[in-house]
Amino acid sequence: MRIALIHGPNLGLLGRRETEVYGTDTLADINGAVDALASELGVEVEAFQSNSEGAILDFLEEAGQRVDGFLINAAGLTHTSVALRDGLVGVGLPFVEVHISNTAAREGFRHHSYLSPVAAGVVQGFGSQGYLLALRGLVARIAGE
Amino acid sequence: MRIALIHGPNLGLLGRRETEVYGTDTLADINGAVDALASELGVEVEAFQSNSEGAILDFLEEAGQRVDGFLINAAGLTHTSVALRDGLVGVGLPFVEVHISNTAAREGFRHHSYLSPVAAGVVQGFGSQGYLLALRGLVARIAGE
Amino acid sequence: MRIALIHGPNLGLLGRRETEVYGTDTLADINGAVDALASELGVEVEAFQSNSEGAILDFLEEAGQRVDGFLINAAGLTHTSVALRDGLVGVGLPFVEVHISNTAAREGFRHHSYLSPVAAGVVQGFGSQGYLLALRGLVARIAGE
Amino acid sequence: MRIALIHGPNLGLLGRRETEVYGTDTLADINGAVDALASELGVEVEAFQSNSEGAILDFLEEAGQRVDGFLINAAGLTHTSVALRDGLVGVGLPFVEVHISNTAAREGFRHHSYLSPVAAGVVQGFGSQGYLLALRGLVARIAGE
Amino acid sequence: MRIALIHGPNLGLLGRRETEVYGTDTLADINGAVDALASELGVEVEAFQSNSEGAILDFLEEAGQRVDGFLINAAGLTHTSVALRDGLVGVGLPFVEVHISNTAAREGFRHHSYLSPVAAGVVQGFGSQGYLLALRGLVARIAGE
Amino acid sequence: MRIALIHGPNLGLLGRRETEVYGTDTLADINGAVDALASELGVEVEAFQSNSEGAILDFLEEAGQRVDGFLINAAGLTHTSVALRDGLVGVGLPFVEVHISNTAAREGFRHHSYLSPVAAGVVQGFGSQGYLLALRGLVARIAGE
Amino acid sequence: MRIALIHGPNLGLLGRRETEVYGTDTLADINGAVDALASELGVEVEAFQSNSEGAILDFLEEAGQRVDGFLINAAGLTHTSVALRDGLVGVGLPFVEVHISNTAAREGFRHHSYLSPVAAGVVQGFGSQGYLLALRGLVARIAGE
Amino acid sequence: MRIALIHGPNLGLLGRRETEVYGTDTLADINGAVDALASELGVEVEAFQSNSEGAILDFLEEAGQRVDGFLINAAGLTHTSVALRDGLVGVGLPFVEVHISNTAAREGFRHHSYLSPVAAGVVQGFGSQGYLLALRGLVARIAGE
Amino acid sequence: MRIALIHGPNLGLLGRRETEVYGTDTLADINGAVDALASELGVEVEAFQSNSEGAILDFLEEAGQRVDGFLINAAGLTHTSVALRDGLVGVGLPFVEVHISNTAAREGFRHHSYLSPVAAGVVQGFGSQGYLLALRGLVARIAGE
Amino acid sequence: MRIALIHGPNLGLLGRRETEVYGTDTLADINGAVDALASELGVEVEAFQSNSEGAILDFLEEAGQRVDGFLINAAGLTHTSVALRDGLVGVGLPFVEVHISNTAAREGFRHHSYLSPVAAGVVQGFGSQGYLLALRGLVARIAGE
Amino acid sequence: MRIALIHGPNLGLLGRRETEVYGTDTLADINGAVDALASELGVEVEAFQSNSEGAILDFLEEAGQRVDGFLINAAGLTHTSVALRDGLVGVGLPFVEVHISNTAAREGFRHHSYLSPVAAGVVQGFGSQGYLLALRGLVARIAGE
Amino acid sequence: MRIALIHGPNLGLLGRRETEVYGTDTLADINGAVDALASELGVEVEAFQSNSEGAILDFLEEAGQRVDGFLINAAGLTHTSVALRDGLVGVGLPFVEVHISNTAAREGFRHHSYLSPVAAGVVQGFGSQGYLLALRGLVARIAGE
Repeated sequence: MRIALIHGPNLGLLGRRETEVYGTDTLADINGAVDALASELGVEVEAFQSNSEGAILDFLEEAGQRVDGFLINAAGLTHTSVALRDGLVGVGLPFVEVHISNTAAREGFRHHSYLSPVAAGVVQGFGSQGYLLALRGLVARIAGE
Repeated sequence: MRIALIHGPNLGLLGRRETEVYGTDTLADINGAVDALASELGVEVEAFQSNSEGAILDFLEEAGQRVDGFLINAAGLTHTSVALRDGLVGVGLPFVEVHISNTAAREGFRHHSYLSPVAAGVVQGFGSQGYLLALRGLVARIAGE
Repeated sequence: MRIALIHGPNLGLLGRRETEVYGTDTLADINGAVDALASELGVEVEAFQSNSEGAILDFLEEAGQRVDGFLINAAGLTHTSVALRDGLVGVGLPFVEVHISNTAAREGFRHHSYLSPVAAGVVQGFGSQGYLLALRGLVARIAGE
Repeated sequence: MRIALIHGPNLGLLGRRETEVYGTDTLADINGAVDALASELGVEVEAFQSNSEGAILDFLEEAGQRVDGFLINAAGLTHTSVALRDGLVGVGLPFVEVHISNTAAREGFRHHSYLSPVAAGVVQGFGSQGYLLALRGLVARIAGE
Repeated sequence: MRIALIHGPNLGLLGRRETEVYGTDTLADINGAVDALASELGVEVEAFQSNSEGAILDFLEEAGQRVDGFLINAAGLTHTSVALRDGLVGVGLPFVEVHISNTAAREGFRHHSYLSPVAAGVVQGFGSQGYLLALRGLVARIAGE
Repeated sequence: MRIALIHGPNLGLLGRRETEVYGTDTLADINGAVDALASELGVEVEAFQSNSEGAILDFLEEAGQRVDGFLINAAGLTHTSVALRDGLVGVGLPFVEVHISNTAAREGFRHHSYLSPVAAGVVQGFGSQGYLLALRGLVARIAGE
Repeated sequence: MRIALIHGPNLGLLGRRETEVYGTDTLADINGAVDALASELGVEVEAFQSNSEGAILDFLEEAGQRVDGFLINAAGLTHTSVALRDGLVGVGLPFVEVHISNTAAREGFRHHSYLSPVAAGVVQGFGSQGYLLALRGLVARIAGE
Repeated sequence: MRIALIHGPNLGLLGRRETEVYGTDTLADINGAVDALASELGVEVEAFQSNSEGAILDFLEEAGQRVDGFLINAAGLTHTSVALRDGLVGVGLPFVEVHISNTAAREGFRHHSYLSPVAAGVVQGFGSQGYLLALRGLVARIAGE
Repeated sequence: MRIALIHGPNLGLLGRRETEVYGTDTLADINGAVDALASELGVEVEAFQSNSEGAILDFLEEAGQRVDGFLINAAGLTHTSVALRDGLVGVGLPFVEVHISNTAAREGFRHHSYLSPVAAGVVQGFGSQGYLLALRGLVARIAGE
Repeated sequence: MRIALIHGPNLGLLGRRETEVYGTDTLADINGAVDALASELGVEVEAFQSNSEGAILDFLEEAGQRVDGFLINAAGLTHTSVALRDGLVGVGLPFVEVHISNTAAREGFRHHSYLSPVAAGVVQGFGSQGYLLALRGLVARIAGE
Repeated sequence: MRIALIHGPNLGLLGRRETEVYGTDTLADINGAVDALASELGVEVEAFQSNSEGAILDFLEEAGQRVDGFLINAAGLTHTSVALRDGLVGVGLPFVEVHISNTAAREGFRHHSYLSPVAAGVVQGFGSQGYLLALRGLVARIAGE
Repeated sequence: MRIALIHGPNLGLLGRRETEVYGTDTLADINGAVDALASELGVEVEAFQSNSEGAILDFLEEAGQRVDGFLINAAGLTHTSVALRDGLVGVGLPFVEVHISNTAAREGFRHHSYLSPVAAGVVQGFGSQGYLLALRGLVARIAGE
């Protein structure tokens, strides 16, 4: 089983800024922890980060031909991108939406997600732990457990 | 570490009705799976189900004095009960909100939760698997990982 | 054929208060009239009243195993209880929603019903006569007329 | 006692189109069933159908001088015609609003009725059976039962 | 100068029903009073009443070729008819909107008029007197006073 | 019969600025024309202008003891002043609301008036002519015509 | 193949008024151009215009038995008529909605169409050219291209 | 004179949790202070607390037969319970609504109260002092001062 | 301790008009009763009334230097004045908002107060009694009880 | 005459995914058909596809110097991109908006287009045929037919 | 060139209260700094402060005859005064709107300004520095730079 | 002190298109004027323009390590990009938002900015002059004046 992990805009700043909101783990820390759990679960994960909606859509279209599902933290695009929703529906694979912070506890414009209604599952508020929970959930979903 | 698992209204019907939405696991199946994972993680879980908002509030108030956190699927009360939100905030312990179905993909009135803004984390859409993810997330949160 | 007739919160006050809105028939009068028509139509009706949402949900779950449909005046819960809607959908039997007064002619918050979209039919504004119309409609529906 | 039964726009298509929504009874079938029940109840009913709001208003104004109440399925006009509401209030007779389908379970624009707040009663969702329930309700109302 | 006076749906009932809202003058009384003032002002007025939006539009299109302006009480169509607005704009003559009652003091759906934004002037709340005020205003407008 | 004519904020600028919206008549011109018509109708009119809501309320309270009704163009206060509405209701005399321009054809915030629902009548869009129409309407109202 | 072309309220004024919005082609010009293209495409077109919603519904019901689809410019009814939508759905034939002007660039109340969600296609903003595009689109749709 | 004092859901936690919002007085402290003032004013007060809406309605119905009015802090039910409003109106006694915190300064969903429009008076924001003010106000109201 | 009591626009009419809403006490009666209670409580009160928002703000700014808190019935300004809110926050003293009538039971535009979210407490619906309750509440608040 | 045809995000997936919504034609098929019609009409078309809003804007800016108009299917950007609207207005050339599916029949967030109010015309719902209709419409518009 | 600088309600409190929001500069400090910059730029500035909307309108009307533009911080009136907007438009001179704090970062009701849509420019969030920027911008605007 | 000046989508068109809205200065003119003022103020400015949101975010992330603040005209992204807001907050430096036109006087969707609530200041409506005002404001802010 092969999973693509997509990090959206600004996540390259993780661990360096706004640590009271997003914690002190860097993107590398998170990718490392996800890789460790993936090994334990016997699956492969490839990580991708971009600040560009277009680049993420290009990646979706291309990676959609070699993976079994997506783990995605779309960051700010979550709330504004119909194109990302269309792309995720278009590739036709299950995906899990993850957020480090609890978006329901933040500004009103973060309460609506274009992705949630078409996601296989949603995990939010657990800090970087959330990626591990999301990975477990996605793997179980693909394995049909 | 001790966790209370609260099941809200109608969840006694799990596994018998609307299985296309909620799956075929009964409440007992779910409690069993949560117990198994709890043992593995070295924590204790006590489960409680009620169709009555008042009874859940009574339980919160009482159990709040012997546990370290709550795992809660408030079902229909999620969307209507200010009292439940007040109770959860009042006892002052971290709680994780879990939903079997993906509420974002269902009727509009299920898109708003009174609990999410004050939850430590939210897990939805993974079927009964979601309880296990939520337990892991809550334990990690309490342990300060 | 067996029907359960459910009366929601405050309906124990019927005939004693606000008679200009709800008329002078008591709950016993209504139950009696429904019983009389039921005999005429050759069906059995059991009546239940509670002020507690939780108790109504308990009743739904239990009675749902011995009746063919529900007649329900959910009173104030009509407008606020997602849990009741979920319970009615959960037991999977046809139900008819009845209101003594014409809720469309009253306060704005009574214009929305969580139950109507999932009801087999709705009858409102006919005073206690409405129960008889609703019973006829439900029996015809179950009989497949 | 004399009742006018008004059928609004497109109801001439009944029984021929969209039978999964409106059933297989034609307008003639419904008028026949209403006539049969009317005989049983000892009242007279005259039926009228028009696709024109203006013609319905003309009929209301004229028939309002020889009948005791109206039974009306205003179809699409239910949701858009202030003029029809004004006409019904203007003639000053009780009327019952009936819908074959359960409008609360259909598109959002069918959830608001200009007629309901000024109706004597509302019956919806019972298929063509609903006309019979509505007739019973209206007759009881006029008879002052 | 020639003016057409248009009365919309249900105004044929004037003076017979809801006299506490619309007063006791009949349509003939109003037309007579308008004629008397018209003579005094040296203008001609032709009156037209219809319950049908289509017939009013036909009249607009035809009369628009022989008159200098319109006086219109569109009754219920005021609040719902884009077609009437389009027709009035289409004929390209000044028109004054008049209402017998004060629509701002009635139900919320009467607070919006499709006609007002394109009217030369609006007069409401003066009872049948309002027609006379509106006639004076329209004549002054056409005369360029 | 005695009438007070109240001009609200900025109306002292009439005839000097924005003449394409408000015309070229000055406040003195309008007061003169109103006086002329008042003489003709056999009534007395006293005019008052202020840019201050408080001063207008003081005037209302004081003049309310010697006049029979008010003619008021509240200008910008029309859309924002609950206090003005309360004052007009408080003095308990009939008043007519007049606007030089057609407020329904201007910015959205001018479409709502706090005064209209409690006014005896409303006249708008006729330029300075509107004051004369409004005076006629108010006099007829007070005279009980 | 046979097509009915329906023109709604006020379109009889085309080419004579508001030419800056609707252009200088008359209804006859448009019908002529449509006929010419129809001949070229080998289909027959019959045109119908009415200011009356009821007459349009009558036509729909009757013509629906001899044509293969509709081309419709419903004008003002586009935005207000549930009955027209119901009629178009009721006859069960594909139809294309056409507007001469670009309704999205006009008043807010023209931005919503009751017809679009059930149309086979929508063409707007191309002036009278739009009828030709719409005819091509409808013919291709019926031919199953 | 006899007064019933009703405490809604979660108020059993008073003085133990969220003391920055609700202060340090326990429910017993508040009941004691109310009793002391009641003695001074020569009235009797009986206090009741429940987490269950149904139980509160039962109490209302029963106590309504022996008291002269209610003092109620409905807590979270204030904002969601139509049934509670109906019950309070149903028993037909004056009641005063009290809140410890200033609900207008908290989350948006606490700004609407189903109870306020039918209350004799409302007191909020004074901490536990508010109960004493409310008692004085209710006693004065019942005494007809 | 010194308190300023502010009466907003139109309150000079108290006891003379709309007595069914505001009761028969005049402003002098209310000031007298407040003075009496103030003596009993050992505090001084100075009363001020103005119809002008600007004058009230001037008073706030000036009196804010010699008093310990404000008691204010802002009447119509309650619902429209951001400036008054800013002034009250600006002087930095605790204030209590009082309304004679129960604003929650009146027109919709009276349901929102700009002052409540920044008030120390709110008292409404108790008639002129409310001033006494508000005074007690404010004194207790300032005294730190 | 030279036209640029712009395909927005995810349209590279055409013909491979969600064929029940978008049909089986690939992007190459559509470009081919457009080219064929362009030859017939004697115009040149250059096609461009990108998943990136920024790249589309770069293309607009550059191509705007050599073409006479644009044909654009902006896909998901239609509903979210103010920048794309600004770019299209900025280059100052006529453009036609085309959608393969009937967006009015899909999710609510697809009902609003930032582009339509500034487009020369809109074509939607005709499948890949729509590009040909749009091309004809744009060519006629540029040619001034 | 001559400029009038208008300070709205409560700004007399500047530098004494809420210094964390508005800074420690007093009104005199700001006027002094503006004067200094004015001298440097070779223009004259006269400053005016009032808590009364009416007085500000009086000043606008009078000063409008001797100055070339206005610099205005309308404080709370920004969000509520249509009369102030009308006055500024009425005098027909360019004005710049300035706010000390960043209103977009404060309460929701401060996000809408009646003045911005008719202002020559807006400057907000720079503390008392903002007046200097606004002065530069206004002078450049009047000078036609 | 070092400042980065960011120009968003379509601003490369400045001075060539829509000059009635944006003026005749090109991007180079603006950059030149900003450089000149920067020299005068003793600060360095580096300018960056991109049509791509992703590229702007990359620039923010990288430049954020060598500059002291940002001057940004985000153009259309102002109204739609949560990601840009997140990026600006993430880098943690003060920024000033500038718009050439007065966005409050344009289409409704331009009235909301995702950036304003987190900006140090906002300047709009002054044409290209606005950049100079914004630079002065930002420099003063960073210098702590």
